[in-house]
Amino acid sequence: MHQFELTREYIDNLRDVIERKDEAVALQLMEELHAADIAEIYKELNIDEARYLYLLLDKEVASDVLVELEEDERERFLKVLPSEVIAKQFIEVMDSDDAADVIGEMSEDKKQEVLSHIDDIEQAGDIADLLNYDENSAGGLMAKELIAVNENYNVNDCIAEIRKQGEDVDEIYNIYVIDDDGKLTGILPLKKLLISPSNSTISGITDTEVKYARTETPAEDVANAMNKYDLVAMPVVDDAGRLVGRITFDDVVDVIREEAEKDYQMASGISEDVEPTDKVWVLTRARIPWLLIGLVGGVFAALVMGYYEGDIKKYAGLAAFIPLIAAMAGNVGVQSSAIIVQALANRSLGIESSLKKLLKEFTIALIIGIIFAAIMFLYNYYTSDSFALTITVSIALFSVILFASLFGTFVPLALERLKIDPALATGPFITTINDITGLFIYLFIGRIIFGAI
Amino acid sequence: MHQFELTREYIDNLRDVIERKDEAVALQLMEELHAADIAEIYKELNIDEARYLYLLLDKEVASDVLVELEEDERERFLKVLPSEVIAKQFIEVMDSDDAADVIGEMSEDKKQEVLSHIDDIEQAGDIADLLNYDENSAGGLMAKELIAVNENYNVNDCIAEIRKQGEDVDEIYNIYVIDDDGKLTGILPLKKLLISPSNSTISGITDTEVKYARTETPAEDVANAMNKYDLVAMPVVDDAGRLVGRITFDDVVDVIREEAEKDYQMASGISEDVEPTDKVWVLTRARIPWLLIGLVGGVFAALVMGYYEGDIKKYAGLAAFIPLIAAMAGNVGVQSSAIIVQALANRSLGIESSLKKLLKEFTIALIIGIIFAAIMFLYNYYTSDSFALTITVSIALFSVILFASLFGTFVPLALERLKIDPALATGPFITTINDITGLFIYLFIGRIIFGAI
Repeated sequence: MHQFELTREYIDNLRDVIERKDEAVALQLMEELHAADIAEIYKELNIDEARYLYLLLDKEVASDVLVELEEDERERFLKVLPSEVIAKQFIEVMDSDDAADVIGEMSEDKKQEVLSHIDDIEQAGDIADLLNYDENSAGGLMAKELIAVNENYNVNDCIAEIRKQGEDVDEIYNIYVIDDDGKLTGILPLKKLLISPSNSTISGITDTEVKYARTETPAEDVANAMNKYDLVAMPVVDDAGRLVGRITFDDVVDVIREEAEKDYQMASGISEDVEPTDKVWVLTRARIPWLLIGLVGGVFAALVMGYYEGDIKKYAGLAAFIPLIAAMAGNVGVQSSAIIVQALANRSLGIESSLKKLLKEFTIALIIGIIFAAIMFLYNYYTSDSFALTITVSIALFSVILFASLFGTFVPLALERLKIDPALATGPFITTINDITGLFIYLFIGRIIFGAI
Repeated sequence: MHQFELTREYIDNLRDVIERKDEAVALQLMEELHAADIAEIYKELNIDEARYLYLLLDKEVASDVLVELEEDERERFLKVLPSEVIAKQFIEVMDSDDAADVIGEMSEDKKQEVLSHIDDIEQAGDIADLLNYDENSAGGLMAKELIAVNENYNVNDCIAEIRKQGEDVDEIYNIYVIDDDGKLTGILPLKKLLISPSNSTISGITDTEVKYARTETPAEDVANAMNKYDLVAMPVVDDAGRLVGRITFDDVVDVIREEAEKDYQMASGISEDVEPTDKVWVLTRARIPWLLIGLVGGVFAALVMGYYEGDIKKYAGLAAFIPLIAAMAGNVGVQSSAIIVQALANRSLGIESSLKKLLKEFTIALIIGIIFAAIMFLYNYYTSDSFALTITVSIALFSVILFASLFGTFVPLALERLKIDPALATGPFITTINDITGLFIYLFIGRIIFGAI
């Protein structure tokens, strides 16, 4: 593939060049690179090296690189620059959605300052507008740059309009068609425009079956719809139905990716979006909260164990299967919740009622429980002298699998109803609760059976 | 948002209509629906109801619906149809990549039969071509439908060519520019074509800085590059540099989503791509393998416990913290491996060496280990009579956190080197090994400390 690959050698070479202050070679090294590649290089450099390179870039590329940087790196860069430079060098050449994202990260004072330095009043207004929307809504994702034409135009007018408006819009996929009030009436794919006779009226060749979002539509819903219907861009309208922006596929890919990563991180007990390249304290901070929950769970487990201390000492072999029971409870619970959480994220849950889902899970848990209880029965029957232990382990394992499955299914469904992110339910939380409950069930059953036999 | 939402009422209503065999109302109910919506409806119907509805649809829509169905549902439909109907009703109206995907799922005999019934020789050849590529490569993702023009054409010729070729291509984002040998020389965005004078030569307005893939480029690399560079489509060339297909953003969104889901499912101990709507036995089958590994781990843990049985009985309170130590080992290990696995998937690992990464992880583990050992020291100091227990738990917890972190970081990095999917390392595998090792470390330290004090 024709693609830049960052290597140790490239960075070492670049560092040498920076140290020698050899502008020509430095520029040459970066010449054919995409802004995303340059942003990747910056991660590997210290701030002085990065600044030296950055000042060599032309305005357009420098802005693109700024957008591609991670938030904390961008902050590092912008901190040292006066508001006027930020506005005129960077913001003015950015698309409105990127500009709003970058300005949105600044303090209130700095925001106002930067906005006041933008010469183009319309552009400043567009950005200020976008800043008002929740970043997790269609309004927060959309850009103001789009090509809109009146439905009464003909093809020739439309092409003239593209020449005029097209300078500001990097990628055009569709032309948006509006009426005299600015209301969205349909879309016109560029292909159709190209192959239609030049005197055709726009309204005659417009596709009026159009999927659109409102400014307040949640970003996740937009992403799911664009993914489901394979849309390259989606128009956004205000409450009056007027066209106010468009969301493109690249924004949506980021939403889908971030959503999936967030769920994965939650399931793994990580509470912030971190990368291995982040600083040690950021990585540590992201890991401590869930470990604390696990620790508290462990202390509770110790209390349960203390409560049954007499039984554990008295009944030989009972202690040995504690890790097995706890691990199985944790694993089964995580599986059950993961299946539900992922389906909730994909909107692929179907329309079965929650009760039906729990019944289905119950059937699965019954099968799994019987299989694993039987395996452990055979294992213990042939390796252990104690029949009480043999049946205690199997009955407890069966019960624990049933409980953990139902609990793992119920919790995310309940959280979803309460409008809490169900992904919270997977990972350490479910594991911890299931660990303790499993332990309790096991020791409780052990006491009864050993006592009875 | 203008979007179809599937409800219980809608399905009940539709079922009534199907039972009454009221074609007109049934068609009206589905009239404004996208193929993806109809596919969603089919999931909720039984096979007879679904077949009734399906036969009402026109050829184009029916083909689109077929593509949108899940693999096992599609199989159910195609099983009952003769090869000729499949070829003429469905395959002939599909895009080549969809056609290849659908045919690729069939048995060898059926494949040949269906291909032989396609009248358009060129189309049959395209599909047979695509069937040769690995489905996880650029060749497996690409479609043959694209607009290519010779670089010596002018704008007018090019528009004529779009009129001619454009019928087969649903969405055009870029025109691909080739030389006399069919080699890719650049791309031409539609916008540029629209605003250029009609006698301009194509080679003069072509963008030659083009990112392309080779047919053998892995699907994941294509997805990562298209995501990184925000590309709506990527051309694919053969070994001679000739243009052979294009991959569009929607294929790539699916790759990214599936990749993220696969990692999440592996981390949760699920071995197949399942949905809650799948059949009970499919869901059960997906869950048993990792549970078996967990069970074997539990049996090993029982053996370790058996080995230390004397110590557990002799030293009061030692047993109580077994679940805590095992849980912390599991949680820490899962966190460490998840951070690495996700970074590997995103190619965001940076160019630090593996040794540096392990050193960083060691620092983080040191901090976390000290914090949690200190918490447990304070807890036990105030609640336990046994100083031996107090220091055993803290020292063991510290050691276990260090071990689990390093192990959780090392394993995915090692698997990646061995070209095995590192996602295998997260979830039950790491948890199980860390459980057993943690237990062993704890009881070993306990024996030494209780013995010494």
